[in-house]
Amino acid sequence: MATAGKVIKCKAAVAWEPNKPLVIEEIEVDPPQANEIRIKIVATAVCHTDLYHLLENMHKDGFPTVLGHEAAGIVESVGPGVTEIQPGDKVIPLFIGQCRQCRFCKSPKTNQCVDAWKGNVMTVADSRFTCKGKKVLQFAGTSTFSEYTVVNEIAVAKIDPAAPLDKVCLLGCGVCTGYGAAVNTAKVEPGSTCAVFGLGAVGLAAVMGCKAAGAEKIIAVDINPEKFEKAKVFGATDFVNPKDHNKPISQVLSEMTDGGVDFSLECVGNVGVMRSALESCVQGWGVSVIVGWTDLQDFSARPIQLIAGRTWKGSAFGGFKGREDVPQMVKAYLDKKVKLDEFITHNMTLDQVNDAIELMKHGKCIRTVLSVSPQ
Amino acid sequence: MATAGKVIKCKAAVAWEPNKPLVIEEIEVDPPQANEIRIKIVATAVCHTDLYHLLENMHKDGFPTVLGHEAAGIVESVGPGVTEIQPGDKVIPLFIGQCRQCRFCKSPKTNQCVDAWKGNVMTVADSRFTCKGKKVLQFAGTSTFSEYTVVNEIAVAKIDPAAPLDKVCLLGCGVCTGYGAAVNTAKVEPGSTCAVFGLGAVGLAAVMGCKAAGAEKIIAVDINPEKFEKAKVFGATDFVNPKDHNKPISQVLSEMTDGGVDFSLECVGNVGVMRSALESCVQGWGVSVIVGWTDLQDFSARPIQLIAGRTWKGSAFGGFKGREDVPQMVKAYLDKKVKLDEFITHNMTLDQVNDAIELMKHGKCIRTVLSVSPQ
Repeated sequence: MATAGKVIKCKAAVAWEPNKPLVIEEIEVDPPQANEIRIKIVATAVCHTDLYHLLENMHKDGFPTVLGHEAAGIVESVGPGVTEIQPGDKVIPLFIGQCRQCRFCKSPKTNQCVDAWKGNVMTVADSRFTCKGKKVLQFAGTSTFSEYTVVNEIAVAKIDPAAPLDKVCLLGCGVCTGYGAAVNTAKVEPGSTCAVFGLGAVGLAAVMGCKAAGAEKIIAVDINPEKFEKAKVFGATDFVNPKDHNKPISQVLSEMTDGGVDFSLECVGNVGVMRSALESCVQGWGVSVIVGWTDLQDFSARPIQLIAGRTWKGSAFGGFKGREDVPQMVKAYLDKKVKLDEFITHNMTLDQVNDAIELMKHGKCIRTVLSVSPQ
Repeated sequence: MATAGKVIKCKAAVAWEPNKPLVIEEIEVDPPQANEIRIKIVATAVCHTDLYHLLENMHKDGFPTVLGHEAAGIVESVGPGVTEIQPGDKVIPLFIGQCRQCRFCKSPKTNQCVDAWKGNVMTVADSRFTCKGKKVLQFAGTSTFSEYTVVNEIAVAKIDPAAPLDKVCLLGCGVCTGYGAAVNTAKVEPGSTCAVFGLGAVGLAAVMGCKAAGAEKIIAVDINPEKFEKAKVFGATDFVNPKDHNKPISQVLSEMTDGGVDFSLECVGNVGVMRSALESCVQGWGVSVIVGWTDLQDFSARPIQLIAGRTWKGSAFGGFKGREDVPQMVKAYLDKKVKLDEFITHNMTLDQVNDAIELMKHGKCIRTVLSVSPQ
């Protein structure tokens, strides 16, 4: 542990300002303070939320920052008070922490730790990163486009030592988000009919979740028909390209399903699609879940849509309580009950992060995994 | 049964056109056809949905019509094929029918009969009413501002012969709508904190439902503080007038409840209030139910509201399956488990229907019960 207690100089991709390419820089990473954990990131994937921060939201208070939040690594050192995790442990950083003490953590109904939407998610004021004498913010409480990062212990899931980090990194965000939205939030039922809007990693994971929950018909909806073959791998049974129809997609789905689907999942982050997903549900008991992220516009619908018996929900990180549930998802992958390899379309290194962002921006990948440090 | 099989000439309040006073006319009521029931209306209340049709929606295809849908009466005669109901039975007409055959009726999840939002609710093309040689539409499949009406048997609940019709008429809409929204749709939990927005009959019934479900704190919200005393009668524990605060009501409620209420019920029919009601819910598990009716505007919110763990639902007729559940609610009233008398602020006759409408328009009543025919 030659580095423990010392500042580590390492490589990171810094987002100096919105809408500009990331720059590979040498940064300084402080030692972990009380209840903090310093992690050597082995592999990180690029998720659409990274692009959202960089290219869509672009809030200038959020820069400079190190993006990245879907990753896996090995603990380098721990700060005072950390007892459950030790140097050498394999871990997945969590962008929604689990303090285990608050009324939300104590409730089985939610994974929304009281700190979830305060400091832990989005930028953290007390970042441990410096670059060229400037404080660099930590994104989503994690910042995994860096060889090393420091995360609060409530935001670290200890996983099976047998887990391949370049695969299970996907459980740090997208796959859990989609899978859990189907299984935990929508609570998809055996024999039901589902529709998944948007076939990125989150949507494909939602398809996988619907299948795991026993759905009979899983309709995959995307304006890019190239995604349909992949959706089939995860369990989709029917495929709809809204561009092939000159009527609202909710009407198309209603006709396909004798009145609408039992469950729909919006995995795009587009308020128009959110409305379509709700309207595609059957009256009486249809449940629509907003999984895609945007905070730039309101979503909306006519009151009759809910009054007629539909339910509108949302899901963050698939409702999973990270410290307990992510290790279980890792186990499910090792037991071949959950697919991960099939999401990975590209492997690159951290230096190529801008290429990975371009691929995602143009819908040319499902997941690109960046190798950050040697395991 | 001197009238059975014959056209009945009787008195009714006809809405000839939108936004005009109703006119007491002599109308002709045809005999019931197959599976239909002709009812002598004994008492009808005036509900805000009657005003909505007349004064807000004002769709010209909906006129001329006979309004009224919250009523009780006695069966005069039945058409061929009606077996469960006989002349002389006390009944409550239902604006949401229950065919008992469709997949919705067969599901315990919903009261939304497949016919609910087609012919049965809103105007019925094949009305049994004529006036001055003109066909007059039936409103909400019922039309109770008339001494006689004809309703499909799926839309008739047979009730206890001991029931006082001038009280239990309220179970035909408003009271079941609010009470059931709390008990059946929100599924209010013992010990929970609730907020009810709007203290008309529906809102007061929602307060009563929250109390029956064991809520510990029931916050009654209205811009008319004169309603607070009545809300207390039904179980409200706290009272908030948004006009007393210069910050959003959701913030006021959040501060009162350490983060928001567990359940909120919107009983106004205003899309701005719908948003406030959602935003007043606690993250993680808060459930907001739209109970008030409007179809003129979209409701909306930011996606984070749902993604943070809130659920948005809607309720029609409180989720009650009318033919089974309304008789049970009548029984609950007779057993003094549900209050009805306390809703009734005015008693009038059918001739005074325009006065009753004016009272409601200006928020000067909770419920006005009109005596229509002698019992």
